[in-house]
Amino acid sequence: MFGAGDVRVIDVPDPMIQQPGDALVRVVRACVCGSDLHPYHSMPASTAGSSMGHEFIGLVEETGAEVTSLRRGDFVIAPFAVSCGRCEFCLAGLQTSCLNGGFWNDARLGTGGGQAEAVRVPFADGTLVKVDGVDAGTDDARLASLITLSDVYGTGWHAAKRGNVTRGSTVTVIGDGAVGLMAVLSAKQLGAERIVLMGRHQVRTNLGREYGATDVVAERGAEGVALVRDLTEGGSPIVIEAVGHLPAYLQAVGTVRPGGVISRVGAPQYEDAPVGFGSLFGHNITLTGGPAPVRAYIAHLLPTVLEATVDPGRVFDLTVDLDHAPQGYTAMDERTALKVMVTP
Amino acid sequence: MFGAGDVRVIDVPDPMIQQPGDALVRVVRACVCGSDLHPYHSMPASTAGSSMGHEFIGLVEETGAEVTSLRRGDFVIAPFAVSCGRCEFCLAGLQTSCLNGGFWNDARLGTGGGQAEAVRVPFADGTLVKVDGVDAGTDDARLASLITLSDVYGTGWHAAKRGNVTRGSTVTVIGDGAVGLMAVLSAKQLGAERIVLMGRHQVRTNLGREYGATDVVAERGAEGVALVRDLTEGGSPIVIEAVGHLPAYLQAVGTVRPGGVISRVGAPQYEDAPVGFGSLFGHNITLTGGPAPVRAYIAHLLPTVLEATVDPGRVFDLTVDLDHAPQGYTAMDERTALKVMVTP
Repeated sequence: MFGAGDVRVIDVPDPMIQQPGDALVRVVRACVCGSDLHPYHSMPASTAGSSMGHEFIGLVEETGAEVTSLRRGDFVIAPFAVSCGRCEFCLAGLQTSCLNGGFWNDARLGTGGGQAEAVRVPFADGTLVKVDGVDAGTDDARLASLITLSDVYGTGWHAAKRGNVTRGSTVTVIGDGAVGLMAVLSAKQLGAERIVLMGRHQVRTNLGREYGATDVVAERGAEGVALVRDLTEGGSPIVIEAVGHLPAYLQAVGTVRPGGVISRVGAPQYEDAPVGFGSLFGHNITLTGGPAPVRAYIAHLLPTVLEATVDPGRVFDLTVDLDHAPQGYTAMDERTALKVMVTP
Repeated sequence: MFGAGDVRVIDVPDPMIQQPGDALVRVVRACVCGSDLHPYHSMPASTAGSSMGHEFIGLVEETGAEVTSLRRGDFVIAPFAVSCGRCEFCLAGLQTSCLNGGFWNDARLGTGGGQAEAVRVPFADGTLVKVDGVDAGTDDARLASLITLSDVYGTGWHAAKRGNVTRGSTVTVIGDGAVGLMAVLSAKQLGAERIVLMGRHQVRTNLGREYGATDVVAERGAEGVALVRDLTEGGSPIVIEAVGHLPAYLQAVGTVRPGGVISRVGAPQYEDAPVGFGSLFGHNITLTGGPAPVRAYIAHLLPTVLEATVDPGRVFDLTVDLDHAPQGYTAMDERTALKVMVTP
């Protein structure tokens, strides 16, 4: 990406093993994330450009001397964060705060993005999750579900876990993007009884209903808030904010029940927001969430994907090859595609 | 209070029973709260004035026809919130969000403040907590500890509970006012192993050490943050913010550990604050807290007060009679007094 709206496919030197803990991964599937749209809207023009993409699955092609858990040919899921696997935060399951890791396209780590043919993966043992029995050449549906474990499914799960969704919960999910829909699915899996999905794109909210939403509210602003407060008889005890823009945060503040929790997983496109007596404090609202440590959740979520008892891959409704990645961005930006798969 | 810095003692008509659920309470002790200093600094001049005080203990003088749990002569603690005792939130222990209640000096409820000779208490069964075996005429030390259950002790306890303090926790408490010190005491009671108290008033921080603080950091701003991060080897997993001003919030954001929690009980004197990627979101910081439902905690805290295994009343270091209440405000404002008791 060379600036807002300016995505190009260019040739770059092949990545190479640099550290003994590195692995080189040949990408099988990548995708475009809703959060990639934030720079797509606002990135200042740059001659150097940014390598894009933080979700990919692939095959290990080469490993550094110190990599112990992986070898050539292994099928792996790459979470959206690079994590050493050994520090306090990795051990606590908060890999997104790893003391040594970082992200894709991270200047400090020298990583590239996942929308590529191959990626160098630092801390390969700590970062990648090996999956046995996957045929990278066939079974598109399974690959689609597997790549959701790179980000959106784990992020939706994080939202639900941080929101403390349990059997019988009432949950409102703000946002009908892939993360919002995965939050619906996760809330359903965790036993939520009432799931209100706020979104106005009917194809998406219909999929949301299939994932478990019991109610859909298309209205926004004060009208949307009033409808959710009505539906939930005074506010939703758990609100998941899966967008990241300030109006979605304000929607969350408006719909949450006294004593309730707002769990955010949409990367905030704002720094300051209301948190005082009139918003969070007065009614003991808890604000939680952040970048999902999806690495911590894959072991738990993987079996349901492999057994196909859930089908998170249905969020993909457009596939482009790498040469057409820019069209993938356009489709997501114009909301003609919910989520775009990129094949190398 | 007739405006910033303008506290007067005036004669008003005696309060009277208005609703069948009311009780009339003759005040035995009242006090001045740190939060009373906020209007003391900023209240616009008013000819009508505001009746002040939201902490009091006293004797029931009269009850309405529907009051069942109290009768004339009962000694009672009045929490700082009026609560019906029957709505969803009261039953859930979140009396500060009571659907029918409110606060002292509340226009909707027609309540006066506790810095008075007598107070009309709506929803007396739901609001007041009766305590047996207290002699209202003697035992000043016990009365001092009992009135902390009106607010500051329960508020400190709420901060610690919301912060999820458990055995072995490391906690940083921002603020050496009465609430901060009660948060230290509460954290200690809940088993915290390391308690860092941020405050620069040595008499207070010394009392904080007696209540359980293991470290005191007098520095503020970036220097204070660096010291706490050093002491806690990378940030405090639990930070209690017991002040309410924005710099204290920023201090909390600076000192909290990734994945940690900021529990606020100082009434925020700001509405907007940083909550985005660079403050809360990036490291999955949870922001929680609010007005303490002290009513919910009295049953648990009362025995330790009655048995004097804790001595929260030591936060009082000045007693004035009602005629000298203005001097009480001055002393707290000038920080010559930590907390001021008012005797009628």
